[in-house]
Amino acid sequence: MADYLANSGRYPVLPHTKPGELIDALPHCAPEHGEPMSAILEDFQRLIVPAATHWNHPGFMAYFATSASGPGILGEMLSAALNMNGMLWKTSPALVELEQVTLEWLWRSMGFAGNPFGIIFDTASTASMHAIAAAREMAAPEIRAEGNGAGLVLYTSEQSHSSIEKGAITLGIGQKNVRKIPVDAEFRMRPDALAKAIERDRAAGLRPFCIVVTVGTTSTTSIDPVEAIADIAGQHGLWLHVDAAYAGAAALAPEFQHILKGCERADSFLTNPHKWLFTPVDLSALYTRRPDILRRAFSLVPEYLRTADDPRAVNYMDYGVPLGRRFRALKLWFVLRYYGRAGIAEIIRAHIGWAQELARQIDADQRFERTAPTPLSTVCFRLKGADEANRSLLERVNASGEVFLSHTMLHDQYCLRLAIGNIGTTREHVQRAWELVQTAAR
Amino acid sequence: MADYLANSGRYPVLPHTKPGELIDALPHCAPEHGEPMSAILEDFQRLIVPAATHWNHPGFMAYFATSASGPGILGEMLSAALNMNGMLWKTSPALVELEQVTLEWLWRSMGFAGNPFGIIFDTASTASMHAIAAAREMAAPEIRAEGNGAGLVLYTSEQSHSSIEKGAITLGIGQKNVRKIPVDAEFRMRPDALAKAIERDRAAGLRPFCIVVTVGTTSTTSIDPVEAIADIAGQHGLWLHVDAAYAGAAALAPEFQHILKGCERADSFLTNPHKWLFTPVDLSALYTRRPDILRRAFSLVPEYLRTADDPRAVNYMDYGVPLGRRFRALKLWFVLRYYGRAGIAEIIRAHIGWAQELARQIDADQRFERTAPTPLSTVCFRLKGADEANRSLLERVNASGEVFLSHTMLHDQYCLRLAIGNIGTTREHVQRAWELVQTAAR
Repeated sequence: MADYLANSGRYPVLPHTKPGELIDALPHCAPEHGEPMSAILEDFQRLIVPAATHWNHPGFMAYFATSASGPGILGEMLSAALNMNGMLWKTSPALVELEQVTLEWLWRSMGFAGNPFGIIFDTASTASMHAIAAAREMAAPEIRAEGNGAGLVLYTSEQSHSSIEKGAITLGIGQKNVRKIPVDAEFRMRPDALAKAIERDRAAGLRPFCIVVTVGTTSTTSIDPVEAIADIAGQHGLWLHVDAAYAGAAALAPEFQHILKGCERADSFLTNPHKWLFTPVDLSALYTRRPDILRRAFSLVPEYLRTADDPRAVNYMDYGVPLGRRFRALKLWFVLRYYGRAGIAEIIRAHIGWAQELARQIDADQRFERTAPTPLSTVCFRLKGADEANRSLLERVNASGEVFLSHTMLHDQYCLRLAIGNIGTTREHVQRAWELVQTAAR
Repeated sequence: MADYLANSGRYPVLPHTKPGELIDALPHCAPEHGEPMSAILEDFQRLIVPAATHWNHPGFMAYFATSASGPGILGEMLSAALNMNGMLWKTSPALVELEQVTLEWLWRSMGFAGNPFGIIFDTASTASMHAIAAAREMAAPEIRAEGNGAGLVLYTSEQSHSSIEKGAITLGIGQKNVRKIPVDAEFRMRPDALAKAIERDRAAGLRPFCIVVTVGTTSTTSIDPVEAIADIAGQHGLWLHVDAAYAGAAALAPEFQHILKGCERADSFLTNPHKWLFTPVDLSALYTRRPDILRRAFSLVPEYLRTADDPRAVNYMDYGVPLGRRFRALKLWFVLRYYGRAGIAEIIRAHIGWAQELARQIDADQRFERTAPTPLSTVCFRLKGADEANRSLLERVNASGEVFLSHTMLHDQYCLRLAIGNIGTTREHVQRAWELVQTAAR
């Protein structure tokens, strides 16, 4: 593991493997009798590593990074050894209380006051689904028993993550009851358009119940105007959920805390330490000022799990779908302690600085254009010209094996997207990516 | 870790800690500056371990066990180091293909033929919710767009896991549209009562859509008559989902494969390797013969995640709520290879044998009565007499720190429940538990 992490840059970021290749290299049945660990580890090296996409590679600049920091891995190892299941306080006081402590630390590190209820889910998709379920419970408590919920309407921007729509579909809200509010020229939800949509739906006898804003959208990391939207949510009594999966981490640097302005007024808020906080997947932190409502949406305690009630003994199973619960807080606790708030801020500040430098270089190159503002560490740009040219440019760059960039569509144009967030990435890796892009363009 | 695992029996199973004690022992903020790893590990030893419930303790016989086997932990360590996110085939071919391979191995190890689509979720609760969502998609495809779904009805037994009801609530089916079918004297769903309930609902204009059966219920490990129920599901065209979270593992021993008879006819089936297959939490395996329907329920691919389509390149994000995906298959692959099918069967066979021995001992003791059949490794029993006496008996036994048993309610009576499933448990530990129960009873 140490050797791999010290040298993760020596692998091609994307493996040279074809669909089905690993499947075809392995038998169709488990072995009848046990094998020595040496044989298993040899196969791991021989078959698994060469088929891996190396998210730890310092040239991984696709999607949003996740990086396996040393302390994060150590935390995960110890969690696996203790192997507790924190469904109830009683089944693991250490897990349940460290989850609360660590989430409070993270909350305060982002510059917020107070200590709302926090709970860890696997991914932001799952966490957002729970937030929307709480919103439904607040607006239409009869749905828990009766089902259905005709006419509930959810609002989010056309740039929000697809998981919001998926959450609404899963919960039985219905895809056509998700209003995708248009964005401004900088890809931020338009409060005027939101207000109009809500009024239109109310006039039509529908039931607006939830607004989901994004701080750091997936395509461009644009930041919705949370304060103006919180005003609208307040006027209409709607649940306000904030998806800050990627960008929340930036607030560990005080000079970027302004991006969360207004979020303290939200009913629920999420951020993903497994993105830009150097914590191995999976760990999405959901906060809510209304744990009573989240609990009302999900609590269903059967007799065999009933324990005597102490108000300080939190039973997390009452706040969501999963009953079982891994000890995920430990890895984040290790990361926060090992680097400290200031140590993390320094890394994040550097990532943002390198992205800003790249943005200026792109702006200075006549062949390219930036296709969105660069508020944080993600740069969207394109070669001036046809989509096809950009598509083949990306293919060529990624074929180098040195970097992995992804793409997105903005204003119906194919754009390249370079996101910095890996703890192993340096300024040189970013500059090398730019060099590869320039060479390929030539 | 090695020292802890070799000596996990030296801790009290349940910690001597009060709610809030760990929270009060820690500061309210993350440190501003980084700390040395030695200080962090010291706090781990000093504060976390003493507040842990030791699921690895060989005397852990509450709920259903989960145990951290050596190969399982090594797999989890390597997963944390690689730290891949397998949302798409492209983002980690190794993860996606090993998930398919390992789930096929597990499927065949349980004695089934063929190779249905398999996907890993965190817990059975989440997996069942996805199965029910697929059932909804099959019966009422209009719900995806429209929401609502008035009148859908789900059938399960009054002994099924609470997660089924929670799944239906989450999906907007409504708690009152979950029919809890009565059980027979051995806690198995009554097919006659099921058939009548479906006919009654159809006559009332409602829309039956899903039956959930359990192989190994949580309270008593009773096994629903799957074949008879599959006939009913077939007659009415209903989705049949099997929850074999605990008991599926028993089928690795051929002489217990009969418990899964009929399950090959189900539309979906789940089992939890993180219960009785010596795989650290979390890993719940969901299988379905109808991946097309599961996919139709959840697929929603945004542009920035679109990759060129190859029929062998599975994009797991299209089959469920979570977008992110840890490399969970690796730990199960390690376990299956290290022990082999036969090696695991031997351990499971021993567990069942010790439970049968204990059942005979309880039957031979006039003071006690068994309160349910003991088909597998879980024994339900009580002291003849008042609930209060049993409650205080359990408290006394658990206060020993040597074992941890849980309880359940059967026929409105408080019962003790001893479940064997930890890889470190021996016959002596089970006998010691029985000794503690007898002493406390005296």
